[in-house]
Amino acid sequence: MIAKTPTPPYYAVIFTSIRTNIDDGYAITADAMVALAQQQQPGFLGAESARNDIGITVSYWSDLDSIKQWKSNTDHLLAQRLGREKWYKSFKTRIAKVERDYEF
Amino acid sequence: MIAKTPTPPYYAVIFTSIRTNIDDGYAITADAMVALAQQQQPGFLGAESARNDIGITVSYWSDLDSIKQWKSNTDHLLAQRLGREKWYKSFKTRIAKVERDYEF
Repeated sequence: MIAKTPTPPYYAVIFTSIRTNIDDGYAITADAMVALAQQQQPGFLGAESARNDIGITVSYWSDLDSIKQWKSNTDHLLAQRLGREKWYKSFKTRIAKVERDYEF
Repeated sequence: MIAKTPTPPYYAVIFTSIRTNIDDGYAITADAMVALAQQQQPGFLGAESARNDIGITVSYWSDLDSIKQWKSNTDHLLAQRLGREKWYKSFKTRIAKVERDYEF
């Protein structure tokens, strides 16, 4: 679903990744991370995700401090470690300030 | 492929969409638009795309003026019109300034 975000400005974390072919908890963990951010993380505004050759997950946040807190969340830190060790061949994370949006 | 973008700052256009089930030139046009941006559009830095339930295409640009020029490119205007008429149930476009990035 397209995330229902507020009027800009707000922040986007664009996470682009290429997976290994190791599954080993990946799908469960990915879903758990979204649920955790949604339920417990201050400043979380929504997320969008799609994958075929590459995966793109964009999460939206009210401010940079919320992104920093999420990055250092204990469960998320463990998921990040497993991501580097097992699930991702490569990834790139971009932190961006959304200045404008429009929809159809 | 993960786009090879320069050191920030630069801009990202995050285009999230839900498709109709009308194909009618969609795939050809989507590919043609990426090729056109790549070959002819000043300020274009790369793009990433994935789709399953929703589609996410993120294109990267050196500055806001390049994004504006691309939005008003004649061929792209036609594609945008067909997108609204045939291919997309809904979409959201977000213009964001990439402030930081890191990779693995």
